[in-house]
Amino acid sequence: MTINAPAHTILPSFAQGQWQAPENPEKVAQVFDANTGEIITGVSSEDIDIAGMVDYARTVGQKSLGDLTIHQRALKLKELAQYLNGRKEELYEISFRAGATQRDHLIDTDGGISTLFVFSSKGRREMPNSNVVIDGQTEVLSRDGSFLGTHIYNRIPGVAVQINAFNFPVWGMLEKFAPSFIAGVPTIVKPATSTGYITEAAVRMMLESGILPEGSLQLLSGSARDLLDHLDYRDHVAFTGSLNTANTLRSHESVLNGGVRFTAEADSLNAAILGPDATEDTPEFDAFVKAVFVEMTAKAGQKCTAIRRVIVPESIKEPFITALADRLNDKVTVGAANAEGTTMGPLASKDQQQDVADATQQLIDAGGKVRLGGPDQVAQYDEAGAFFPPTILEFDDADTDAVHTVEAFGPVTSVITYQDDVNEAVRLAARGAGSLVATVTSNDDTFVADATLGISAHHGRVHVLNRDTAKSSTGHGSPLPHLVHGGPGRAGGGEELGGVRAVKHYMQRTAVQGSPDMLTAITGVWHQGAKANTVTREQVDNGTGEHPFRKPLDSLRIGDQFASELRHVSLQEILDFAEETGDKFYAHVDEEAAMANPFFPRRVAHGYLLVSWAAGLFVDAAPGPVLANYGLENLSFITPVTYDDSIRVTLTAKQITPRVTDEYGEVRWDAVLHNQNDEIVATYDVLTLVTKTWPEQYPQQ
Amino acid sequence: MTINAPAHTILPSFAQGQWQAPENPEKVAQVFDANTGEIITGVSSEDIDIAGMVDYARTVGQKSLGDLTIHQRALKLKELAQYLNGRKEELYEISFRAGATQRDHLIDTDGGISTLFVFSSKGRREMPNSNVVIDGQTEVLSRDGSFLGTHIYNRIPGVAVQINAFNFPVWGMLEKFAPSFIAGVPTIVKPATSTGYITEAAVRMMLESGILPEGSLQLLSGSARDLLDHLDYRDHVAFTGSLNTANTLRSHESVLNGGVRFTAEADSLNAAILGPDATEDTPEFDAFVKAVFVEMTAKAGQKCTAIRRVIVPESIKEPFITALADRLNDKVTVGAANAEGTTMGPLASKDQQQDVADATQQLIDAGGKVRLGGPDQVAQYDEAGAFFPPTILEFDDADTDAVHTVEAFGPVTSVITYQDDVNEAVRLAARGAGSLVATVTSNDDTFVADATLGISAHHGRVHVLNRDTAKSSTGHGSPLPHLVHGGPGRAGGGEELGGVRAVKHYMQRTAVQGSPDMLTAITGVWHQGAKANTVTREQVDNGTGEHPFRKPLDSLRIGDQFASELRHVSLQEILDFAEETGDKFYAHVDEEAAMANPFFPRRVAHGYLLVSWAAGLFVDAAPGPVLANYGLENLSFITPVTYDDSIRVTLTAKQITPRVTDEYGEVRWDAVLHNQNDEIVATYDVLTLVTKTWPEQYPQQ
Repeated sequence: MTINAPAHTILPSFAQGQWQAPENPEKVAQVFDANTGEIITGVSSEDIDIAGMVDYARTVGQKSLGDLTIHQRALKLKELAQYLNGRKEELYEISFRAGATQRDHLIDTDGGISTLFVFSSKGRREMPNSNVVIDGQTEVLSRDGSFLGTHIYNRIPGVAVQINAFNFPVWGMLEKFAPSFIAGVPTIVKPATSTGYITEAAVRMMLESGILPEGSLQLLSGSARDLLDHLDYRDHVAFTGSLNTANTLRSHESVLNGGVRFTAEADSLNAAILGPDATEDTPEFDAFVKAVFVEMTAKAGQKCTAIRRVIVPESIKEPFITALADRLNDKVTVGAANAEGTTMGPLASKDQQQDVADATQQLIDAGGKVRLGGPDQVAQYDEAGAFFPPTILEFDDADTDAVHTVEAFGPVTSVITYQDDVNEAVRLAARGAGSLVATVTSNDDTFVADATLGISAHHGRVHVLNRDTAKSSTGHGSPLPHLVHGGPGRAGGGEELGGVRAVKHYMQRTAVQGSPDMLTAITGVWHQGAKANTVTREQVDNGTGEHPFRKPLDSLRIGDQFASELRHVSLQEILDFAEETGDKFYAHVDEEAAMANPFFPRRVAHGYLLVSWAAGLFVDAAPGPVLANYGLENLSFITPVTYDDSIRVTLTAKQITPRVTDEYGEVRWDAVLHNQNDEIVATYDVLTLVTKTWPEQYPQQ
Repeated sequence: MTINAPAHTILPSFAQGQWQAPENPEKVAQVFDANTGEIITGVSSEDIDIAGMVDYARTVGQKSLGDLTIHQRALKLKELAQYLNGRKEELYEISFRAGATQRDHLIDTDGGISTLFVFSSKGRREMPNSNVVIDGQTEVLSRDGSFLGTHIYNRIPGVAVQINAFNFPVWGMLEKFAPSFIAGVPTIVKPATSTGYITEAAVRMMLESGILPEGSLQLLSGSARDLLDHLDYRDHVAFTGSLNTANTLRSHESVLNGGVRFTAEADSLNAAILGPDATEDTPEFDAFVKAVFVEMTAKAGQKCTAIRRVIVPESIKEPFITALADRLNDKVTVGAANAEGTTMGPLASKDQQQDVADATQQLIDAGGKVRLGGPDQVAQYDEAGAFFPPTILEFDDADTDAVHTVEAFGPVTSVITYQDDVNEAVRLAARGAGSLVATVTSNDDTFVADATLGISAHHGRVHVLNRDTAKSSTGHGSPLPHLVHGGPGRAGGGEELGGVRAVKHYMQRTAVQGSPDMLTAITGVWHQGAKANTVTREQVDNGTGEHPFRKPLDSLRIGDQFASELRHVSLQEILDFAEETGDKFYAHVDEEAAMANPFFPRRVAHGYLLVSWAAGLFVDAAPGPVLANYGLENLSFITPVTYDDSIRVTLTAKQITPRVTDEYGEVRWDAVLHNQNDEIVATYDVLTLVTKTWPEQYPQQ
């Protein structure tokens, strides 16, 4: 056996801005190549000042991240993703040593990078360019409108600690880092010891990129030691790994009594259900076999989302097992991860190999019949590597406890059956007592709806597979940055990812009550009833006031307001509009029928005519900083407008979102239409694009 | 001392549909009148089949609640509120015995009833009338649109257990019951022993109303015994009380390892901050004094939200203490809760009296100077009652640990000071290590914004008080059903209330992936790309197809679709529309300027003209089941339309929400505009009111 690294080579940590490793640690964990058993490195976190790391994050990290806005941080993630994309071959090279094949790299390395891209995009498209996120609608809490309530999200004032599993050393780190970084919370990464050298390489690249603000990312290689002792309610711990470890962490004093925000994502006994309609001759049958095949072999089945329990109708069991076994026999070549022709690498370590063999044996002892593979077949492989064969176990009794409780964290799956009754399939899936994900495969939409709604409360994700998605599905086992990942019960009870939802996990939701002016000051978003800087059409026309549409972002302020004059509504105009648009709905053109309608006094103006007139009332016609009206939201028609009424519009700059990558940004305007009696006719938000400066060159499209 | 109830009178529980009490319990807790010390009742849960209660809820309760929709359950809450409102005097009468004054009844009894009303209204206005709630937007996960993702909320499949505090025997129960009931999750109520007889009376009324479905509400009077042993990841425990008890529950095996969903709301050392601008002559000073006064005296300070720490500028300390003491001396008459002239009743029990005296003494020993009241003054009151005087403690050292850690759960507050620096006030407030609520009182919007954002992540709620809200504010100490209640750290780390947010606490969020057809089948909401039942204008005109606007709710189905013909766009029409509406924005009328704009090819049609034409294209003019278009949401203009382009519209029934109390309901239509090249021009949702049947009488307005 070649010794690549001397035992005293210790994987460094990045703490308080410095790479450092203990010089003479007392205890060193040794990490081995999964293919060859060669020593890769020693690992120890001794002598690392962990309390200092926490303090550094809370001070330096919070400060440097807080100097940026959400959009600025999100943009950095894109830059970081581009940088890592340029160096991903280096990560592939290192990852082979943990048993990951080229196909596996696409999941771990490329999947991690793509998670950064998605979060960067969502952060900039779906969040404000500030540091306060408003949640939900404004609640009017007093009759006179002087006392309002709203909810804000603000970043937590501590550190985001991530404790990761060995199976995704890159993706696992990046999928947690991305949302906490956007939220503005500094991260301490604690990777699993057995693959921490891959995480170390990735973190080193991230730091070398020069993109990250000081203190935003630290790495603790080796044991977490007393890390949790230093955390409190300001901090967040996101754990991925076994349920046992999750529960040990959950019972730590700092979590139980100290208020640490703790989430766990644990392996679970994920199910795949085949519908009774999906017989051997259907596209669903083929898609199902392929899905189970992929989940068994990708990462050699070392995915917390892998399919551990296959639930098929009794009548389809034998065709299914035969087809799955055939496919595995045809397509799987077990071998060293980077060897020519290998399609499935070894498990991550000899320890994992032993654990999987033991768990598989437990399942066999509980009644599992080996239909392919099995622990006896391990001997065929090079003893130095952690190889394990694809293994299918068949159970006669679907309620065998072990099927629903024992997890072989490798290329192993159990097949059980039900008698074509969807409730029975649901009951069996729920016996997993909380799972990350289940697949439902059927082309019968009633079966799919019943199965999905039956199991949904037991699952974090349900993946529906049928002929329409057989090619386009991203797969049972792939958590996507857009969708939540996690699940109740055995799956750990946590929630990660899910786009903006994940960013909010690193923020505190707080109800805020006060006057419109004060809520405006706190949120940076104008609230109805707050003071406004009003100009009228008359002031604009006689030069004593500037129309807010003349102001580019560098001078426009929330509260800048335009108030129109009243405009008279004539019957002829309503009738003309009906004629010109073709909208001759009776309420606009037939007096008698309109009066019979419960909501209208007589013929009324079209809602679309009112908003068109409103635009005519508030618009500033000449070229200026307002480039376009790109949308409208939350339009409510409240009081009908009939002929000989009049309307006026008040338009107020409500929210300003400069884009970090363009010479313009979005301005949301609060629009309110009133009639001649000051009753509210309609309310909505007008969405516009406005240049940052004016006059200026038009930005490039 | 009169014995009202013999020691063997045991407060009953309502378990598995039966009122029951142990006949000869071994241990009986005795509950006393807070005013007089008279025995009220014995309490014991011995012999109650607690495992049976859990099973009954999970089966009978889940079934009967699941037979109703969200709106049907929400409507029952309104009926229940009306019923309780008619009997609230009975609850007042009983509540006096716990020391609650008439003013306190308004908080506990009336506050509880009003919480039911608010949840009923929000459930019907802000949630769908089904049992699946969609969360957020649809995510398109494949390029061809055949694979989508969305998130749904579905009720948890277990029981909602509420473990309540003694101080709000009615409100505390109703504020937890309302959201779990709307979610469709049956409740087991476990009140605090010392005031459980009030909860028992309220539960008895709720059951007597005949409104509640079988199994939806059970009551466990007395010790929770082995209740938690029977719970798992399907269930939810909402606890209110001390942090110590919260943490004991949190470390129960079922929570730590069993996946029980656990939330806690604990007393905290809530702060009130006075800004440096709020000097003695300002309205803010007066409002602040009144707020602290109210929080000290309402419920005799026995509110988890009460102000325990008053943080004032050093220069305003003396005027503040003087004004507060004067007000307390003027307005507080301590006495039996239902006695003439009493403005503050006793604490809830002699035990509480002793606890408050002990905690106050701890604060005094730590340096607190008694400026009013104090434990020495207890002797002035009738010894039989649990009376305690309003007490002001002044501290020279604002960082005295006891101020930030010791809670006297009564009419006691500590006054500390800062030197006009907002960061110092923020630091002191944050020393509470997580609180339910803080008040910021100032008329300086910069101070308010800095203080609020500085403390928000340490708080569940921030209440801003200034001259504008002095009269309209609902108060520092009042959790509102509209706003979240709870807080990080010492406040328990939980979240309750907050309108629909609270309902979702009793539901599991699950990501669902699949084809548009399958997501439509699962959610009951039509997804773009799903199959549709399409009719064209030609089919409508020649009688071979029925326009979906001709269908009332009893025959309309999601997926019913109308597809219009193409409509040509002429320059003259654009110019005419500009003239008629007054919207002469240059992009519509000035060819050269339009071409200089980065987003437009040349003069383009107004967005409002396009949606007006779309209405003309899709409308069905004659009287029919569609009563009105009451709004429009999420309008996005995607491709500009210039003259000599053509547009067409496709309108599809997306979501149908029949109202439970009206003869009509809401129909949301998916609208998509395309141009002659099948590019998407605009997308939006059209909101209409549609009758349930047709022909029919118009509903009453």
